Amino acid sequence: MTTSSYAHSRPRAVVLLSGGLDSATCLAIAAQEYDCYAISFAYGQRHNSELAAAARLAKAHGAVDHRVIHIDLGGIGGSALTDMSIDVPEEASLGIPVTYVPARNTVFLAFALGFAEVVHADTMVIGVNAVDYSGYPDCRPEYIAAFQQLANLATKSGIEGHPLKVDTPLLHLSKAEIIQQGLKLGVDYSLTVSCYQADLDGYACGKCDSCRLRREGFLAAGVADPTRYR
Amino acid sequence: MTTSSYAHSRPRAVVLLSGGLDSATCLAIAAQEYDCYAISFAYGQRHNSELAAAARLAKAHGAVDHRVIHIDLGGIGGSALTDMSIDVPEEASLGIPVTYVPARNTVFLAFALGFAEVVHADTMVIGVNAVDYSGYPDCRPEYIAAFQQLANLATKSGIEGHPLKVDTPLLHLSKAEIIQQGLKLGVDYSLTVSCYQADLDGYACGKCDSCRLRREGFLAAGVADPTRYR
Repeated sequence: MTTSSYAHSRPRAVVLLSGGLDSATCLAIAAQEYDCYAISFAYGQRHNSELAAAARLAKAHGAVDHRVIHIDLGGIGGSALTDMSIDVPEEASLGIPVTYVPARNTVFLAFALGFAEVVHADTMVIGVNAVDYSGYPDCRPEYIAAFQQLANLATKSGIEGHPLKVDTPLLHLSKAEIIQQGLKLGVDYSLTVSCYQADLDGYACGKCDSCRLRREGFLAAGVADPTRYR
Repeated sequence: MTTSSYAHSRPRAVVLLSGGLDSATCLAIAAQEYDCYAISFAYGQRHNSELAAAARLAKAHGAVDHRVIHIDLGGIGGSALTDMSIDVPEEASLGIPVTYVPARNTVFLAFALGFAEVVHADTMVIGVNAVDYSGYPDCRPEYIAAFQQLANLATKSGIEGHPLKVDTPLLHLSKAEIIQQGLKLGVDYSLTVSCYQADLDGYACGKCDSCRLRREGFLAAGVADPTRYR
């Protein structure tokens, strides 16, 4: 069997790739098993350097394709991540944070579903995490199960007997475990951008929720933090 | 009670408004009960005159707001409605037609869900129809029920005890019944555009699936067809 025929026999997965630490690890995990079709979203987020990071990661981990979909979440508003009139908080908050983007994962998974149908992938991989999940309702396991059910009712593939699944390899890992697993698979975390208010070159603020969780993760994993702080 | 305080006490609904016959009727029905927030999508469809129709209809039926969200379904491809390399068929076909857009209603409802959260609407109204539904999997009642379940797991409102519902007033109506109901509510169907390949001014081909269903509807309803054919 040649390498190329082997490659064609692997199953296909659409991998949601934000360019952050979690999705980079997801891609590395998925690439062991699947031919990966990465999908990223330009949605008016403050931290566009994430998208540059996503492109570097897709290349580094051998994704077959990488699509960047431009969407208009800013037109809906309501989050500190897309609405410039709301400040990103620099202290931990209780409950659902203002960085919550209404229906974000539903929109992202909906596009991933469309892309999966077009490239004949039967799996969507998303790096949601129930441990460090920051209080977002659309990161919970019951949400993911409901989306998988929807996907199988929504699509030509689903109703023609090719079931789709949503794979969440990070669901029950701590940030430290995610980092340890990624390092084993060769993820270069200096390529990733997690900060909610990273600058154009991807330098992190070190203060927002996302920076805090990430820094604590490297500390708990007992490895050096390669994050580029400004 | 003044008209304006009455208006403020009405519940709010996000209404998916394509500019076609069905969604125009949906808006007219929803406007009896709700303050309506209309949402339309510019998604690289061939028939952009639909969006002009949507704007006219939103105004005619007193929508509080009308958002047009630009999305990138064309970047995913796979349908005759968004991919210029696939012809729109002019004969009835068996099974799921090539005009099926992968995950379209899932993407649309996901944006509607985000908009509903931001404007504090507890209802989303969509004009899917199980009778004349053209074979699209994401127009079936079981699909809509699955989306409603997802919506309540996905959102801050859902988990904070303000359940969201998806209302489908046309679900069990024939095209003729939809037209009869709309006429009673003052819908001017000459404003609507249903054709899959309408020209820039909204003139219809008279040949595609959508034109056929619409023409048969007016015939069965026993009323004159106000469609502007080219």
